[in-house]
Amino acid sequence: MIEITMVEPTVALYGPSYDQTVEVLDEVIRESGARYALLLDRKGFVLAHRRALWASKPPPLDSLATLVANNAAAIQALAKILGEAQFQEQVHQGKDVGLFLEETGSLALLVIIFDSSAPLGRIKLFGKRAAKLLAKIAAEATVAPDKLGIDSEYSEGASALLDDLFGTSS
Amino acid sequence: MIEITMVEPTVALYGPSYDQTVEVLDEVIRESGARYALLLDRKGFVLAHRRALWASKPPPLDSLATLVANNAAAIQALAKILGEAQFQEQVHQGKDVGLFLEETGSLALLVIIFDSSAPLGRIKLFGKRAAKLLAKIAAEATVAPDKLGIDSEYSEGASALLDDLFGTSS
Repeated sequence: MIEITMVEPTVALYGPSYDQTVEVLDEVIRESGARYALLLDRKGFVLAHRRALWASKPPPLDSLATLVANNAAAIQALAKILGEAQFQEQVHQGKDVGLFLEETGSLALLVIIFDSSAPLGRIKLFGKRAAKLLAKIAAEATVAPDKLGIDSEYSEGASALLDDLFGTSS
Repeated sequence: MIEITMVEPTVALYGPSYDQTVEVLDEVIRESGARYALLLDRKGFVLAHRRALWASKPPPLDSLATLVANNAAAIQALAKILGEAQFQEQVHQGKDVGLFLEETGSLALLVIIFDSSAPLGRIKLFGKRAAKLLAKIAAEATVAPDKLGIDSEYSEGASALLDDLFGTSS
């Protein structure tokens, strides 16, 4: 029997780790003048998001998170060609809106969306500072694979498949 | 009969346009302290590339160009979600190396690769200035589709296929 398992987040923020994350995101927004701040895991799940008091409704965050996470993964091929382990930081600048992305430990990504009028220096400064704090929080909130049950389910499914194919039973 | 046509560059730089491009790229490198400067077309073809006198052999440029062009195309989905027509400018920053990308008209991309020790402000300033000059040069050097013969070959191939299928002759 094969079970289909959905992709699950690598990091789960509950209680105090979520509260701390929200506090850090709020501070980034306050200090940098940014519009939105999000913490994503590398698979593209939104772990937490905040917006400035004055900011309008944000864009569809799940789609945004998926695109950002996929793009961050793709860009690593480019880093490798240039002899870098990875690009820690990315800035995408449009006419009115900018997007700042900072690696947050090995598991998460900090995304800051800002108006082009906001000072990029402050976005980067407070973004980097926040990413360091968030990396610690995320590392402590990592979900162990067996907690999610993906690995055991997968291996049971795989064993069952092999049994069917070769007629052995374990 | 169907003919398979390869992807061809949209822009071709010959004679004076190539010389002008090289001049602009050399100036960017000289003024900004960058290591390499490349002009690509959006499909990922290297139109021209230069390196600093002191710079070592560059990374495989064709692979780099393909990755950059694909990535630049993918990132536009992100821009659209944020209500931007496109991101004109991207900066990817690693520990030792950085990559600056600026839209160069609608056809080309300027890529500047720099050491992390180079001042980002200068890279951006001279990068933007160069992109404007290069956009003009590239626009004048655009290859008309019928010059490449892709369109006529494609339509002939398609007609022949339809003839085979439906037994009509044109």
